[in-house]
Amino acid sequence: MSLNTTITEIDNLLEKAQEAFFIFKNFTVKQRAAFMHQVADAIEALDDELITTAQAETNLPVARLQGEKGRTVFQWRSYADALQSGVVLPVRIDTALPDRQPAPRPSIRKTYTPLGPVVVFCASNFPFAFSTAGGDTASAIAAGCPVIVKAHSAHPKTSGIMAAAINGVIQKAGLPEGLFGHVYSNSFENGTYLVSHPVVKAVGFTGSHGGGKALFDLANKRAEPIPVFAEMGSVNPVFLLAQKLNNAAEEVAKQYAASLTLGVGQFCTNPGIFVAPESPALATFINTLAQQISATPAAPMLHKGIAAAYHTNKTNVLQQPAVEVIAQATEGAEGFGNAAIAITTAADFIANKKLSQEVFGPFGLLVTYKTQEEAAAIAKALEGQLTISIWGETEELADNKTLINIVESKCGRLLFNNFPTGVEVCYAMTHSGPYPSCSDSRFTAVGPDAIKRFARPVSYQNWPDALLPDELKDENVLGVWRTVNGELSKENV
Amino acid sequence: MSLNTTITEIDNLLEKAQEAFFIFKNFTVKQRAAFMHQVADAIEALDDELITTAQAETNLPVARLQGEKGRTVFQWRSYADALQSGVVLPVRIDTALPDRQPAPRPSIRKTYTPLGPVVVFCASNFPFAFSTAGGDTASAIAAGCPVIVKAHSAHPKTSGIMAAAINGVIQKAGLPEGLFGHVYSNSFENGTYLVSHPVVKAVGFTGSHGGGKALFDLANKRAEPIPVFAEMGSVNPVFLLAQKLNNAAEEVAKQYAASLTLGVGQFCTNPGIFVAPESPALATFINTLAQQISATPAAPMLHKGIAAAYHTNKTNVLQQPAVEVIAQATEGAEGFGNAAIAITTAADFIANKKLSQEVFGPFGLLVTYKTQEEAAAIAKALEGQLTISIWGETEELADNKTLINIVESKCGRLLFNNFPTGVEVCYAMTHSGPYPSCSDSRFTAVGPDAIKRFARPVSYQNWPDALLPDELKDENVLGVWRTVNGELSKENV
Repeated sequence: MSLNTTITEIDNLLEKAQEAFFIFKNFTVKQRAAFMHQVADAIEALDDELITTAQAETNLPVARLQGEKGRTVFQWRSYADALQSGVVLPVRIDTALPDRQPAPRPSIRKTYTPLGPVVVFCASNFPFAFSTAGGDTASAIAAGCPVIVKAHSAHPKTSGIMAAAINGVIQKAGLPEGLFGHVYSNSFENGTYLVSHPVVKAVGFTGSHGGGKALFDLANKRAEPIPVFAEMGSVNPVFLLAQKLNNAAEEVAKQYAASLTLGVGQFCTNPGIFVAPESPALATFINTLAQQISATPAAPMLHKGIAAAYHTNKTNVLQQPAVEVIAQATEGAEGFGNAAIAITTAADFIANKKLSQEVFGPFGLLVTYKTQEEAAAIAKALEGQLTISIWGETEELADNKTLINIVESKCGRLLFNNFPTGVEVCYAMTHSGPYPSCSDSRFTAVGPDAIKRFARPVSYQNWPDALLPDELKDENVLGVWRTVNGELSKENV
Repeated sequence: MSLNTTITEIDNLLEKAQEAFFIFKNFTVKQRAAFMHQVADAIEALDDELITTAQAETNLPVARLQGEKGRTVFQWRSYADALQSGVVLPVRIDTALPDRQPAPRPSIRKTYTPLGPVVVFCASNFPFAFSTAGGDTASAIAAGCPVIVKAHSAHPKTSGIMAAAINGVIQKAGLPEGLFGHVYSNSFENGTYLVSHPVVKAVGFTGSHGGGKALFDLANKRAEPIPVFAEMGSVNPVFLLAQKLNNAAEEVAKQYAASLTLGVGQFCTNPGIFVAPESPALATFINTLAQQISATPAAPMLHKGIAAAYHTNKTNVLQQPAVEVIAQATEGAEGFGNAAIAITTAADFIANKKLSQEVFGPFGLLVTYKTQEEAAAIAKALEGQLTISIWGETEELADNKTLINIVESKCGRLLFNNFPTGVEVCYAMTHSGPYPSCSDSRFTAVGPDAIKRFARPVSYQNWPDALLPDELKDENVLGVWRTVNGELSKENV
């Protein structure tokens, strides 16, 4: 029987989260950052049990899991450091102008305050970095919010180990228990209950469009609507330009196959659509790609449900008119995913919405175009994406301004001669995009700016200096960057 | 017959807005700022016809309208300047690390891109600063978005003059016509059509809760949900502490009456709830307040509908059990609003939700408390607010930590010994707050940060330097602040 937390237990967690909120919101950024570093250390210190448990629950290779653990630790540390710089949650000070005419200006100072308790839904495909102690949890804690995590039913034991690590830090540091809660669930009931509860003030989600949209709708139907950041994946189109195809058909095909099949295609940034020009060189590209795909051994997917969905969705696309299979790897055992690649034309792709739906797994659809106009028309027909990649020679990029202009309006990250799998955790990252890839393109799920999802500005007018939050006091005791009367500075006021 | 734009005309405006979007999004921040300064100059140059038209349509005094015109011009100029500093829409550069182990890091650089065409709904109470050429329009244009304004039916001629000024700049500068559209409406139909249209990507609104919530729901029901920033007003509670009451009962009463009756109480920051301790000095406060309120002549409200709603809503509160009138000014002619003040106790206030509803106009409800705990309980019972003010002696503020902790979680702006009417246009302003005062507390409607409502981050990975937006190029040609590998800098990379 799968683990399940009762509603009574959830009520208790929420009550404690609310209590913790009123304590934790008064922590300085320095104190919050210190807690985050302790969590990072605790995760880093977890032994092989974490890896072997996750390996058993997710079928992900050990090396990948070790890498993901490092990424998770890095997220806590780098978000904590960013929090202390004043760069992510900007501090604004406008000093009093007592002699201003026709009326004086009072002192007004703005910082950020946490939204309230946040519910985080774990992702199936990242048991560490986008789950219990993942980016959403680290962001919400950085913002000053208590977190209640809904464990993913595919890796509950892994989730439990991570939760214990966080709770261990809380206990040892004597912090309020309600700062972190952990909920198991064997149905939709617990998630629905959490998102509908008045104590909860925001939601973080990484997963399917169906799941994310349902939570988004639920949150908006509440008496008090709350923000939901749902990263719901996309097909991450790649546009290949003509000269590059001529010059590097084999190389691009090999790199594309590697990105498409990485981790059995189980990334939200998996490049599922490849748009290429019709040209004699295309045959070379296709041949190489076919060899690579055929030679990729089928591998176990995250769980049997995901593998079954992959086969169904792939078959659905392959059965559409004007779609032909180019290559398909041999099927594996139950629960395995076999890579496949098919081909269609621009006109057929644009005419049939089913061809641009995400197939979660190592499936690619090659879409051929005859002219620059046709490539632009494909781009125009696309829904919002996390990423769009352009492969070309530098000089031909300048010749495709219309295409670039359109794809900029369709995605959160634009790549040149790179494939989108592998999302760097850094300031400049946007892991987001126009709907339906995300529920709110104005925020990112990765990088320190992800903290902004869970904080809101609050201004203090004419407030006594001694009682202001540290970052707003005349003396810049935290040494953060502040915008003082419009100018960035670290000086005292 | 009132002015009304046809759906065919709106379709035409939207088509042009879409065309303009793909041109305007490639303007540099410098070019956008230049356009904004031209708009500011054009508004500033408008002659007395603007003021006399607005005066006739809104009943607002000439001096107030002249001040509001200046504020409107200032918004365009200050948002344009902020846009060019890199402070509002932060630029992030993470440089390539080709030697990083186990894998190199590509160059990743992030800037902001406009969401798309934005629909702005004009407010009744600010015909300039929150209407046609108001803060929402200036913010959306600063973000790079074309704007379609829905004129307010109470001041269509004023709206037409402002629209002509903006369109004049567009024509003179040879900019795309679709950059600004202006829609008249004599029913809900046009607003509903605009918010539902796929070309529209965001909405700005200032007005009633009913109006804002309807647009929010509509936007979330679209096939592609879009963000709505709706500022829906609040009751802006004021908490008076015991010593201050003892020391300055008359002075506080006079200042409160002035703020409550300013502009016939027609501000979203009008302080409609005044929470005061039971004490002998309260009689002095009440007497002074009663004198001030009684002596305030009734004055014409914005339009007859608003005056009628004011009388109905005020009467509804006065008819509640345990509410007593303290003072009421003599009623004026039809369309006039007369100030009034009533009193109730903390327990009655907390028990009856109707007492905390906004009464748009010069009506104040005095709520008395016996203990600090009771004051905190009142704060706890409040819904989200734009502002909450504390009046006290500096030393007693430190003694009311629980109250402060609660009110911080309930509002966007906290004031000390200030009243909330008069919203400064500056970096540190938050004109926003938890729901229901606003639809998204993470953004502000006033100050340069208001621009963020209409822009989203976009990252460029491994992109050729020459083709990057100016602010992301190695050479810092725009001289903006940029976060380079985590450090703020104006240096070249």
